Amino acid sequence: MLDAAYRQFCEHGIHGTSIEAITDDAGFTRGAFYSNFASKEELFLALAERENRLRLELLRDRFDEVVAPLGRTSGKPGRELTEGVIADILALQPENRQWCLLESEFKLLAMRDPQVAPRFLENMRTFQRELAAMVDAALASVGLRFVIDSGHLTRLLVDHFESVMQEAILAGEDDAESAVRDSIMRTLPSLVHSLTEVRS
Amino acid sequence: MLDAAYRQFCEHGIHGTSIEAITDDAGFTRGAFYSNFASKEELFLALAERENRLRLELLRDRFDEVVAPLGRTSGKPGRELTEGVIADILALQPENRQWCLLESEFKLLAMRDPQVAPRFLENMRTFQRELAAMVDAALASVGLRFVIDSGHLTRLLVDHFESVMQEAILAGEDDAESAVRDSIMRTLPSLVHSLTEVRS
Repeated sequence: MLDAAYRQFCEHGIHGTSIEAITDDAGFTRGAFYSNFASKEELFLALAERENRLRLELLRDRFDEVVAPLGRTSGKPGRELTEGVIADILALQPENRQWCLLESEFKLLAMRDPQVAPRFLENMRTFQRELAAMVDAALASVGLRFVIDSGHLTRLLVDHFESVMQEAILAGEDDAESAVRDSIMRTLPSLVHSLTEVRS
Repeated sequence: MLDAAYRQFCEHGIHGTSIEAITDDAGFTRGAFYSNFASKEELFLALAERENRLRLELLRDRFDEVVAPLGRTSGKPGRELTEGVIADILALQPENRQWCLLESEFKLLAMRDPQVAPRFLENMRTFQRELAAMVDAALASVGLRFVIDSGHLTRLLVDHFESVMQEAILAGEDDAESAVRDSIMRTLPSLVHSLTEVRS
Protein backbone atom coordinates (compact mmCIF):
# COMPACT_ATOMS: atom_id res chain seq x y z
CA MET A 1 0.00 0.00 0.00
CA LEU A 2 2.87 2.40 0.81
CA ASP A 3 4.50 1.67 -2.55
CA ALA A 4 1.23 2.29 -4.37
CA ALA A 5 0.78 5.56 -2.45
CA TYR A 6 4.32 6.65 -3.33
CA ARG A 7 3.62 6.01 -7.03
CA GLN A 8 0.29 7.85 -7.00
CA PHE A 9 1.62 10.78 -4.94
CA CYS A 10 4.56 11.18 -7.34
CA GLU A 11 2.32 11.17 -10.37
CA HIS A 12 -0.59 13.32 -9.17
CA GLY A 13 0.71 15.09 -6.05
CA ILE A 14 -0.62 14.36 -2.56
CA HIS A 15 -3.44 16.85 -3.01
CA GLY A 16 -4.46 15.30 -6.34
CA THR A 17 -4.42 11.68 -5.15
CA SER A 18 -7.61 10.08 -3.84
CA ILE A 19 -7.71 7.18 -1.42
CA GLU A 20 -9.48 5.27 -4.18
CA ALA A 21 -6.54 5.80 -6.57
CA ILE A 22 -4.21 4.34 -3.93
CA THR A 23 -6.37 1.31 -3.16
CA ASP A 24 -6.95 0.65 -6.89
CA ASP A 25 -3.21 0.78 -7.55
CA ALA A 26 -2.45 -1.46 -4.57
CA GLY A 27 -5.28 -3.90 -5.33
CA PHE A 28 -6.86 -3.38 -1.91
CA THR A 29 -10.38 -2.42 -0.86
CA ARG A 30 -11.25 0.86 0.85
CA GLY A 31 -11.97 -1.26 3.92
CA ALA A 32 -8.39 -2.54 3.90
CA PHE A 33 -7.15 1.05 3.68
CA TYR A 34 -9.20 2.23 6.64
CA SER A 35 -8.25 -0.74 8.77
CA ASN A 36 -4.63 0.46 8.40
CA PHE A 37 -4.85 4.26 8.17
CA ALA A 38 -7.37 6.78 9.45
CA SER A 39 -6.70 9.14 6.51
CA LYS A 40 -4.46 9.96 3.54
CA GLU A 41 -2.40 12.11 5.91
CA GLU A 42 -1.82 9.16 8.25
CA LEU A 43 -0.63 7.12 5.30
CA PHE A 44 1.78 9.86 4.24
CA LEU A 45 3.19 10.07 7.77
CA ALA A 46 3.82 6.29 7.68
CA LEU A 47 5.48 6.73 4.28
CA ALA A 48 7.65 9.54 5.64
CA GLU A 49 8.72 7.38 8.58
CA ARG A 50 9.67 4.59 6.20
CA GLU A 51 11.63 6.91 3.86
CA ASN A 52 13.48 8.57 6.74
CA ARG A 53 14.32 5.19 8.26
CA LEU A 54 15.56 3.95 4.89
CA ARG A 55 17.84 6.96 4.52
CA LEU A 56 19.23 6.61 8.03
CA GLU A 57 19.84 2.87 7.56
CA LEU A 58 21.66 3.37 4.26
CA LEU A 59 23.94 5.82 6.05
CA ARG A 60 24.31 3.76 9.22
CA ASP A 61 25.38 0.64 7.31
CA ARG A 62 28.40 2.35 5.80
CA PHE A 63 29.04 5.50 7.82
CA ASP A 64 31.84 4.24 10.08
CA GLU A 65 33.62 2.64 7.14
CA VAL A 66 33.37 5.80 5.02
CA VAL A 67 34.56 8.05 7.85
CA ALA A 68 37.41 5.71 8.91
CA PRO A 69 40.09 7.33 6.66
CA LEU A 70 39.80 10.50 8.78
CA GLY A 71 41.27 8.53 11.70
CA ARG A 72 44.32 7.33 9.77
CA THR A 73 46.13 10.67 9.86
CA SER A 74 47.58 12.26 12.94
CA GLY A 75 46.10 15.63 13.81
CA LYS A 76 43.36 17.34 11.86
CA PRO A 77 42.63 15.73 8.47
CA GLY A 78 43.49 17.84 5.43
CA ARG A 79 40.88 19.47 3.24
CA GLU A 80 41.24 16.95 0.42
CA LEU A 81 40.69 14.02 2.73
CA THR A 82 37.57 15.68 4.16
CA GLU A 83 36.38 16.28 0.60
CA GLY A 84 36.73 12.60 -0.30
CA VAL A 85 34.80 11.50 2.78
CA ILE A 86 31.95 13.92 2.07
CA ALA A 87 31.76 12.71 -1.55
CA ASP A 88 31.54 9.12 -0.28
CA ILE A 89 28.75 10.04 2.15
CA LEU A 90 26.78 11.77 -0.62
CA ALA A 91 27.17 8.66 -2.80
CA LEU A 92 25.26 6.68 -0.14
CA GLN A 93 22.11 8.73 -0.75
CA PRO A 94 19.19 7.04 -2.51
CA GLU A 95 17.05 8.83 -5.12
CA ASN A 96 15.86 12.04 -3.50
CA ARG A 97 14.21 14.07 -6.27
CA GLN A 98 10.71 12.62 -6.06
CA TRP A 99 10.92 12.34 -2.30
CA CYS A 100 11.90 16.01 -2.01
CA LEU A 101 8.86 17.05 -4.06
CA LEU A 102 6.52 14.94 -1.93
CA GLU A 103 8.04 16.07 1.33
CA SER A 104 7.82 19.73 0.29
CA GLU A 105 4.16 19.28 -0.59
CA PHE A 106 3.40 17.49 2.63
CA LYS A 107 5.28 20.03 4.74
CA LEU A 108 3.17 22.80 3.25
CA LEU A 109 0.02 20.79 3.93
CA ALA A 110 1.19 20.26 7.53
CA MET A 111 1.97 23.98 7.98
CA ARG A 112 -1.67 24.71 7.13
CA ASP A 113 -3.20 21.84 9.14
CA PRO A 114 -2.77 21.91 12.95
CA GLN A 115 -3.94 18.27 13.10
CA VAL A 116 -1.05 17.05 10.98
CA ALA A 117 1.71 19.51 11.96
CA PRO A 118 2.78 17.98 15.32
CA ARG A 119 3.35 14.50 13.86
CA PHE A 120 5.18 15.85 10.81
CA LEU A 121 7.41 17.90 13.11
CA GLU A 122 8.07 14.90 15.37
CA ASN A 123 9.11 12.82 12.32
CA MET A 124 11.44 15.59 11.18
CA ARG A 125 13.02 16.02 14.60
CA THR A 126 13.52 12.28 15.10
CA PHE A 127 15.33 12.10 11.77
CA GLN A 128 17.59 15.02 12.63
CA ARG A 129 18.32 13.72 16.13
CA GLU A 130 19.31 10.28 14.86
CA LEU A 131 21.42 11.72 12.06
CA ALA A 132 23.24 14.04 14.48
CA ALA A 133 23.92 11.14 16.88
CA MET A 134 25.34 9.09 14.01
CA VAL A 135 27.61 11.90 12.82
CA ASP A 136 28.76 12.56 16.39
CA ALA A 137 29.61 8.93 17.09
CA ALA A 138 31.46 8.53 13.78
CA LEU A 139 33.52 11.68 14.36
CA ALA A 140 34.32 10.63 17.94
CA SER A 141 35.50 7.23 16.67
CA VAL A 142 38.19 8.97 14.59
CA GLY A 143 39.16 11.38 17.37
CA LEU A 144 37.46 14.46 15.93
CA ARG A 145 34.57 16.74 16.83
CA PHE A 146 32.84 19.86 15.54
CA VAL A 147 33.67 23.21 17.13
CA ILE A 148 29.93 24.02 17.26
CA ASP A 149 27.06 21.87 18.55
CA SER A 150 26.79 18.89 16.19
CA GLY A 151 22.99 18.87 16.38
CA HIS A 152 22.92 22.47 15.17
CA LEU A 153 25.41 21.80 12.39
CA THR A 154 23.58 18.66 11.24
CA ARG A 155 20.35 20.67 11.13
CA LEU A 156 22.04 23.36 9.05
CA LEU A 157 23.33 20.76 6.59
CA VAL A 158 19.96 19.02 6.28
CA ASP A 159 18.29 22.39 5.59
CA HIS A 160 20.90 23.16 2.96
CA PHE A 161 20.61 19.74 1.35
CA GLU A 162 16.85 20.16 1.00
CA SER A 163 17.21 23.62 -0.48
CA VAL A 164 19.86 22.50 -2.98
CA MET A 165 17.61 19.63 -4.09
CA GLN A 166 14.70 22.06 -4.53
CA GLU A 167 16.97 24.33 -6.55
CA ALA A 168 18.02 21.46 -8.84
CA ILE A 169 14.35 20.69 -9.46
CA LEU A 170 13.61 24.37 -10.16
CA ALA A 171 16.57 24.52 -12.55
CA GLY A 172 15.06 21.55 -14.41
CA GLU A 173 18.29 19.56 -14.14
CA ASP A 174 17.94 16.28 -16.04
CA ASP A 175 20.09 14.63 -13.44
CA ALA A 176 19.04 16.41 -10.25
CA GLU A 177 20.95 13.98 -8.03
CA SER A 178 24.29 14.77 -9.65
CA ALA A 179 23.54 18.52 -9.77
CA VAL A 180 22.96 18.33 -6.01
CA ARG A 181 26.21 16.47 -5.43
CA ASP A 182 28.15 19.06 -7.47
CA SER A 183 26.59 21.94 -5.58
CA ILE A 184 27.12 20.36 -2.17
CA MET A 185 30.74 19.56 -3.04
CA ARG A 186 31.36 23.25 -3.73
CA THR A 187 30.14 24.37 -0.30
CA LEU A 188 30.40 21.58 2.26
CA PRO A 189 34.08 20.55 2.31
CA SER A 190 35.35 24.04 3.27
CA LEU A 191 32.60 24.47 5.82
CA VAL A 192 33.09 21.09 7.49
CA HIS A 193 36.87 21.44 7.40
CA SER A 194 36.68 24.86 9.08
CA LEU A 195 34.38 23.54 11.81
CA THR A 196 36.28 20.33 12.67
CA GLU A 197 38.90 20.00 15.38
CA VAL A 198 40.87 17.23 17.06
CA ARG A 199 39.32 16.04 20.35
CA SER A 200 41.49 16.88 23.29
CA MET B 1 -3.41 45.09 -6.68
CA LEU B 2 -0.31 43.49 -5.06
CA ASP B 3 -1.66 44.28 -1.58
CA ALA B 4 -5.03 42.75 -2.47
CA ALA B 5 -3.28 39.66 -3.87
CA TYR B 6 -1.19 39.34 -0.70
CA ARG B 7 -4.35 39.46 1.44
CA GLN B 8 -6.22 36.92 -0.69
CA PHE B 9 -3.23 34.56 -0.99
CA CYS B 10 -2.73 34.64 2.79
CA GLU B 11 -6.37 33.86 3.44
CA HIS B 12 -7.05 31.21 0.78
CA GLY B 13 -3.63 30.07 -0.40
CA ILE B 14 -2.31 30.79 -3.89
CA HIS B 15 -4.00 27.68 -5.28
CA GLY B 16 -7.34 28.66 -3.73
CA THR B 17 -7.32 32.29 -4.90
CA SER B 18 -9.00 33.23 -8.18
CA ILE B 19 -8.05 36.25 -10.26
CA GLU B 20 -11.61 37.43 -9.66
CA ALA B 21 -11.09 37.37 -5.88
CA ILE B 22 -8.01 39.55 -6.32
CA THR B 23 -9.66 42.08 -8.65
CA ASP B 24 -12.78 42.24 -6.42
CA ASP B 25 -10.62 42.90 -3.35
CA ALA B 26 -8.57 45.53 -5.21
CA GLY B 27 -11.59 47.19 -6.82
CA PHE B 28 -10.22 46.63 -10.33
CA THR B 29 -11.70 44.98 -13.39
CA ARG B 30 -10.39 41.76 -14.93
CA GLY B 31 -9.25 43.92 -17.83
CA ALA B 32 -7.10 45.99 -15.50
CA PHE B 33 -5.57 42.78 -14.14
CA TYR B 34 -4.68 41.43 -17.56
CA SER B 35 -3.23 44.73 -18.73
CA ASN B 36 -0.70 44.35 -15.88
CA PHE B 37 -0.16 40.61 -15.50
CA ALA B 38 -0.43 37.68 -17.90
CA SER B 39 -1.45 35.30 -15.12
CA LYS B 40 -1.77 34.74 -11.37
CA GLU B 41 1.78 33.34 -11.45
CA GLU B 42 3.10 36.57 -13.02
CA LEU B 43 1.44 38.54 -10.26
CA PHE B 44 2.99 36.33 -7.60
CA LEU B 45 6.44 36.79 -9.14
CA ALA B 46 5.94 40.58 -9.00
CA LEU B 47 4.87 40.22 -5.37
CA ALA B 48 7.95 38.12 -4.58
CA GLU B 49 10.19 40.74 -6.17
CA ARG B 50 8.56 43.44 -4.04
CA GLU B 51 8.86 41.42 -0.82
CA ASN B 52 12.49 40.49 -1.47
CA ARG B 53 13.35 44.10 -2.29
CA LEU B 54 11.61 45.29 0.88
CA ARG B 55 13.61 42.83 3.00
CA LEU B 56 16.90 43.83 1.38
CA GLU B 57 16.14 47.54 1.80
CA LEU B 58 15.26 47.17 5.47
CA LEU B 59 18.60 45.46 5.98
CA ARG B 60 20.58 47.84 3.74
CA ASP B 61 19.28 50.94 5.57
CA ARG B 62 20.72 49.84 8.89
CA PHE B 63 23.27 47.10 8.15
CA ASP B 64 26.46 49.18 8.34
CA GLU B 65 25.33 50.87 11.53
CA VAL B 66 24.42 47.55 13.18
CA VAL B 67 27.69 45.92 12.16
CA ALA B 68 29.85 48.93 13.13
CA PRO B 69 30.54 47.75 16.73
CA LEU B 70 32.52 44.83 15.29
CA GLY B 71 35.09 47.35 14.02
CA ARG B 72 35.59 49.00 17.41
CA THR B 73 37.68 46.18 18.87
CA SER B 74 41.16 45.28 17.77
CA GLY B 75 41.49 41.76 16.43
CA LYS B 76 38.66 39.29 16.13
CA PRO B 77 35.46 40.37 17.92
CA GLY B 78 34.45 38.22 20.89
CA ARG B 79 31.51 35.86 20.85
CA GLU B 80 29.25 38.11 22.90
CA LEU B 81 29.79 41.04 20.59
CA THR B 82 28.99 38.86 17.57
CA GLU B 83 25.87 37.68 19.38
CA GLY B 84 24.66 41.23 19.93
CA VAL B 85 25.18 42.15 16.29
CA ILE B 86 23.27 39.08 15.07
CA ALA B 87 20.38 39.89 17.44
CA ASP B 88 20.29 43.44 16.04
CA ILE B 89 20.23 42.14 12.46
CA LEU B 90 17.36 39.75 13.26
CA ALA B 91 15.43 42.64 14.81
CA LEU B 92 15.47 44.36 11.40
CA GLN B 93 13.34 41.59 9.88
CA PRO B 94 9.72 42.43 9.00
CA GLU B 95 6.86 39.95 9.58
CA ASN B 96 7.88 36.72 7.87
CA ARG B 97 5.32 34.12 8.95
CA GLN B 98 2.71 34.75 6.24
CA TRP B 99 5.37 35.40 3.65
CA CYS B 100 7.09 32.11 4.45
CA LEU B 101 3.83 30.22 3.94
CA LEU B 102 3.19 31.92 0.60
CA GLU B 103 6.74 31.48 -0.62
CA SER B 104 6.71 27.79 0.33
CA GLU B 105 3.48 27.29 -1.59
CA PHE B 106 4.76 29.15 -4.61
CA LYS B 107 8.09 27.33 -4.59
CA LEU B 108 6.23 24.02 -4.72
CA LEU B 109 4.08 25.32 -7.56
CA ALA B 110 7.24 26.43 -9.40
CA MET B 111 8.92 23.04 -8.84
CA ARG B 112 6.00 21.41 -10.66
CA ASP B 113 5.67 24.04 -13.42
CA PRO B 114 8.58 24.42 -15.88
CA GLN B 115 7.05 27.70 -17.11
CA VAL B 116 7.33 29.34 -13.71
CA ALA B 117 10.47 27.67 -12.32
CA PRO B 118 13.17 29.72 -14.14
CA ARG B 119 11.76 33.07 -13.01
CA PHE B 120 11.24 31.90 -9.46
CA LEU B 121 14.82 30.65 -9.39
CA GLU B 122 16.14 33.90 -10.83
CA ASN B 123 14.29 35.88 -8.12
CA MET B 124 15.74 33.63 -5.43
CA ARG B 125 19.28 33.89 -6.77
CA THR B 126 19.11 37.67 -7.13
CA PHE B 127 18.03 37.95 -3.51
CA GLN B 128 20.85 35.73 -2.29
CA ARG B 129 23.46 37.47 -4.44
CA GLU B 130 22.49 40.92 -3.15
CA LEU B 131 22.35 39.74 0.44
CA ALA B 132 25.79 38.13 0.15
CA ALA B 133 27.24 41.32 -1.37
CA MET B 134 25.79 43.37 1.48
CA VAL B 135 27.19 41.05 4.14
CA ASP B 136 30.57 40.99 2.41
CA ALA B 137 30.81 44.78 2.16
CA ALA B 138 29.74 45.27 5.77
CA LEU B 139 32.27 42.77 7.06
CA ALA B 140 35.04 44.30 4.94
CA SER B 141 34.20 47.74 6.34
CA VAL B 142 35.03 46.50 9.84
CA GLY B 143 38.17 44.63 8.74
CA LEU B 144 36.71 41.12 8.87
CA ARG B 145 35.84 38.34 6.44
CA PHE B 146 34.47 34.79 6.49
CA VAL B 147 36.91 31.89 6.21
CA ILE B 148 34.61 30.26 3.63
CA ASP B 149 33.02 31.80 0.54
CA SER B 150 30.54 34.40 1.78
CA GLY B 151 28.02 33.57 -0.97
CA HIS B 152 27.98 29.95 0.20
CA LEU B 153 27.64 30.92 3.85
CA THR B 154 24.86 33.42 3.14
CA ARG B 155 23.01 30.74 1.19
CA LEU B 156 23.37 28.33 4.11
CA LEU B 157 21.98 30.92 6.52
CA VAL B 158 19.04 31.81 4.26
CA ASP B 159 18.18 28.09 3.94
CA HIS B 160 18.37 27.69 7.69
CA PHE B 161 16.26 30.78 8.34
CA GLU B 162 13.52 29.50 6.04
CA SER B 163 13.56 26.08 7.68
CA VAL B 164 13.41 27.55 11.20
CA MET B 165 10.44 29.71 10.20
CA GLN B 166 8.68 26.65 8.74
CA GLU B 167 9.39 24.78 11.97
CA ALA B 168 7.89 27.59 14.08
CA ILE B 169 4.75 27.43 11.93
CA LEU B 170 4.59 23.63 12.26
CA ALA B 171 5.04 23.93 16.03
CA GLY B 172 2.05 26.29 16.06
CA GLU B 173 4.00 28.98 17.90
CA ASP B 174 1.71 31.89 18.75
CA ASP B 175 4.61 34.23 18.19
CA ALA B 176 6.46 32.55 15.33
CA GLU B 177 8.74 35.56 14.82
CA SER B 178 10.12 35.43 18.34
CA ALA B 179 10.38 31.61 18.27
CA VAL B 180 12.50 32.01 15.15
CA ARG B 181 14.74 34.62 16.80
CA ASP B 182 15.27 32.36 19.83
CA SER B 183 16.16 29.38 17.67
CA ILE B 184 18.49 31.35 15.41
CA MET B 185 20.22 32.88 18.44
CA ARG B 186 21.01 29.38 19.72
CA THR B 187 22.79 28.35 16.50
CA LEU B 188 24.09 31.33 14.57
CA PRO B 189 26.43 33.18 16.96
CA SER B 190 28.77 30.17 17.46
CA LEU B 191 28.72 29.37 13.77
CA VAL B 192 29.43 32.90 12.59
CA HIS B 193 32.06 33.43 15.27
CA SER B 194 33.87 30.22 14.25
CA LEU B 195 33.84 31.23 10.58
CA THR B 196 35.01 34.86 10.97
CA GLU B 197 38.61 36.03 10.76
CA VAL B 198 40.48 39.32 10.67
CA ARG B 199 41.37 40.45 7.12
CA SER B 200 45.09 40.37 6.55
